[in-house]
Amino acid sequence: MNAKNSQRPRLKIRRVNLDTGRENVVVMSRRSLALRPDVFRGFSRVELQCGDKELLATLLLTDDGMVGTDELGLSEPAFRRFGQPVGALVAVKPATPPESLDAVRAKIQGHSLQPAEIGAIIDDISHYRYSDMEIAAFLISSASFMTSGELLALARAMAEAGTQLKWDRPIVVDKHCIGGIPGNRTSMVVVPIVAAHGLTIPKTSSRAITSPAGTADTMEVLARVDLGVDEMREVVNACHGCLVWGGHVNLSPADDILISVERPLSLDTREQMVASIMSKKLAAGSTHLLIDLPVGPSAKLTTAMEAMRLRKLFEFVGDHFGIAVEVITTDGRQPIGNGIGPVLEAHDVMAVLSNDPAAPKDLREKSLRLAAHLLDYDPELRGGKGYQRARELLESGAALRQMQKIIDAQGPSSCSTDLGPLTVDIVSERDGVVEGIDCLRLNRLARTAGAPIDKGAGIKVLKKIGDRVEQGEPLYRIYAVDMAEFELALAGAKDGSGYAIAGETDR
Amino acid sequence: MNAKNSQRPRLKIRRVNLDTGRENVVVMSRRSLALRPDVFRGFSRVELQCGDKELLATLLLTDDGMVGTDELGLSEPAFRRFGQPVGALVAVKPATPPESLDAVRAKIQGHSLQPAEIGAIIDDISHYRYSDMEIAAFLISSASFMTSGELLALARAMAEAGTQLKWDRPIVVDKHCIGGIPGNRTSMVVVPIVAAHGLTIPKTSSRAITSPAGTADTMEVLARVDLGVDEMREVVNACHGCLVWGGHVNLSPADDILISVERPLSLDTREQMVASIMSKKLAAGSTHLLIDLPVGPSAKLTTAMEAMRLRKLFEFVGDHFGIAVEVITTDGRQPIGNGIGPVLEAHDVMAVLSNDPAAPKDLREKSLRLAAHLLDYDPELRGGKGYQRARELLESGAALRQMQKIIDAQGPSSCSTDLGPLTVDIVSERDGVVEGIDCLRLNRLARTAGAPIDKGAGIKVLKKIGDRVEQGEPLYRIYAVDMAEFELALAGAKDGSGYAIAGETDR
Repeated sequence: MNAKNSQRPRLKIRRVNLDTGRENVVVMSRRSLALRPDVFRGFSRVELQCGDKELLATLLLTDDGMVGTDELGLSEPAFRRFGQPVGALVAVKPATPPESLDAVRAKIQGHSLQPAEIGAIIDDISHYRYSDMEIAAFLISSASFMTSGELLALARAMAEAGTQLKWDRPIVVDKHCIGGIPGNRTSMVVVPIVAAHGLTIPKTSSRAITSPAGTADTMEVLARVDLGVDEMREVVNACHGCLVWGGHVNLSPADDILISVERPLSLDTREQMVASIMSKKLAAGSTHLLIDLPVGPSAKLTTAMEAMRLRKLFEFVGDHFGIAVEVITTDGRQPIGNGIGPVLEAHDVMAVLSNDPAAPKDLREKSLRLAAHLLDYDPELRGGKGYQRARELLESGAALRQMQKIIDAQGPSSCSTDLGPLTVDIVSERDGVVEGIDCLRLNRLARTAGAPIDKGAGIKVLKKIGDRVEQGEPLYRIYAVDMAEFELALAGAKDGSGYAIAGETDR
Repeated sequence: MNAKNSQRPRLKIRRVNLDTGRENVVVMSRRSLALRPDVFRGFSRVELQCGDKELLATLLLTDDGMVGTDELGLSEPAFRRFGQPVGALVAVKPATPPESLDAVRAKIQGHSLQPAEIGAIIDDISHYRYSDMEIAAFLISSASFMTSGELLALARAMAEAGTQLKWDRPIVVDKHCIGGIPGNRTSMVVVPIVAAHGLTIPKTSSRAITSPAGTADTMEVLARVDLGVDEMREVVNACHGCLVWGGHVNLSPADDILISVERPLSLDTREQMVASIMSKKLAAGSTHLLIDLPVGPSAKLTTAMEAMRLRKLFEFVGDHFGIAVEVITTDGRQPIGNGIGPVLEAHDVMAVLSNDPAAPKDLREKSLRLAAHLLDYDPELRGGKGYQRARELLESGAALRQMQKIIDAQGPSSCSTDLGPLTVDIVSERDGVVEGIDCLRLNRLARTAGAPIDKGAGIKVLKKIGDRVEQGEPLYRIYAVDMAEFELALAGAKDGSGYAIAGETDR
């Protein structure tokens, strides 16, 4: 009996046009020549092998002609990651689970993990060897507790899993906001100010996942943001700064995978947030980092106590890795700027940079304050002169010119920059004073209206906290491109505007 | 503007032949008329609506003709559960996550849950409203700790999620083994003995998930096991007992879903095991329950201390629900009986019932001991006479006749009962005495050989602990149907036979 003859035949790769997100999925016929699918009862993970290329994937079975009995269907992400041509022969067998899952199980049982174990987990995750469920297992077991040693190991392992930028300069500054506040596009004002001064600020930002815009989405209204590492480096060399999408640079790819599982589960723990942010900054080669923690009733942090605990965690990790971290708490009671959604926010940013008298004062002031902190890192600048220097750079037009230079260096945007043609004003139902604005609600409404998919969709805020309004006076305007989404947003705003108005009778 | 006109069109249901396991999956074109798929960035769950039927599902996108722009593809489980015909019009929108997920998040954060919260979670899980990841989140958050209140609530909620059997009799006995020991088909000997005595024992069993055979797989060699509730009731009325597959009766369906997620993650916590088993017994209407806890170096429990902690947990839950629970520890150092795999195990069982002198003595003795405990629940029987009565029923042939009656009542099996034609003996490499047998290893080898998919595949154990063997003497025989699997099993056995043989030199 010849072992070779009796081995299962290999299957031909077929491309199955299914976008299965981050997860590798393969489709096999229930009558496959390669394996009896029943073998997989209770397991649904398989290992593909083709030469020295290997891939772990989740298996789906089919009875009909989607794939032949001599074929293996690879979903889009599996096909892309496996990197083998259609028709290539591939061996399939039940997958041996990644060894690092033993550490995940230990963590579930309450053990704390060694740096090498966390390193192995992150390595497997960033090579797509974990199923979504296995990723969730790691996240959830870590959500209940994480030691400081684990936190440091996680941040480092994530930083090392992707691109690691090195800058040949003593000071590389960065800023980061933990998010949650509509508008709040300070980075797009801060970067040109700081870069105009000559400090290096290679800013990478995220796209929105569940919010109506990330800085990368808004910057994309003005310039290309999907630059590769080399292009990014050229822009920074020419302009001292950039505003690019971090996803394309591949900084901390494991973090992107973890976030894509955290979000649907709405997991949001302090330790994971800090590990996530610090891994990106570590990979980005930052030496000085300013963290913005907005505090407010509908912000991610609702009390000064929470903000302080988070601050200490950032400082602890920063100290460990030799990054000078400064953490400030800011007013997170309401949107910053007037626009919510990429085009509207880009308008705000350009108005501030152009010293337009109608520019939103809160965005201008907050940006100057943040820029001042960063400028104070410059040893050449006299102590305490950061704010004055930031204002000079803004008011002289130097910041605007720097922004234009960055935009030109990054290249033109290919997006539509038109505002959504469908608009409606949401008006106050009574006379009174704006007492509160629900940030979560406005974010959700702007997202419902189509932002950030429609760059021109979103919300323009017309009244802020403390403003007096009359009955029937507009509080904000909704912009949309798509009719169905416009109606959904309008219905949502009628259901709850997100504004608390205190009338005379409340006094 | 008419709201009706601007609403997104509904999509036509198309059946997509994809078996996506327990998870509802739908496929939509990237150019769908109903929804811009970009809307789902960051979410991948959708809600289908058709009349008053609703379904939550995970969304996959496609660019090609798998589904048209006016169609929605439903994978097999989604199609079956939605229960609407092909071509029916269905509305699709981003899913609102089940409210009970708030409780899961609270649990992740270390809170303990109220019974109503656990009830809501189990209700949503058993109605397939959770994604696999969400199920994993619940399991993992519960794996790290579970209060006794949570354990009781979980067992009750799972019992109430499916069929709940009621028997109009004062005593309904049941037995359960926590598994892990190859062979060990005591239920198939115990049920006919106990039923022959006249006690009611409506036994439901599981199929193998990762082992080479469950009792349902082995019974299926002799009779039909996929009976519905009414059929099962008829059999029990006629024969006092039955041996059916629990999955078809739909006892504690949530448990089956939880197990299907626990297994790939290899989660195995005491509390979840107890909740799982007790939910099935509660739903089955048992009044007296005997639990078999095998202890041995390669069993699920390796020490008497572990067994005691588990025993107390079973007793606690049994007391709470008014089920008389008796827990015994048994010898779990090696396989029980000779056969591992459905046909081989069925041979052992019938040999014991037929009083065949060659029948495995350990299976006979263990079954008599378990039956004795159950018979002692009969108030009519003189105290301590259970064992004697069990032996009478076995030796007189009453148990065999009762088994035949049960087989006839359940109906004939449609499986092949042939032993696998490919066989090989695994022999001892030295003279000596068998000191240990690795249960995990033999289970894995029997599974590799094709059991339980091939009923006739598996292992026949020829030597037990304490037996003297000579070099070249067979330890066990592998049976297989499929050539590739035969070779894999043989290679596996050569890699490690699972037998520890102590030679003269070791003494």
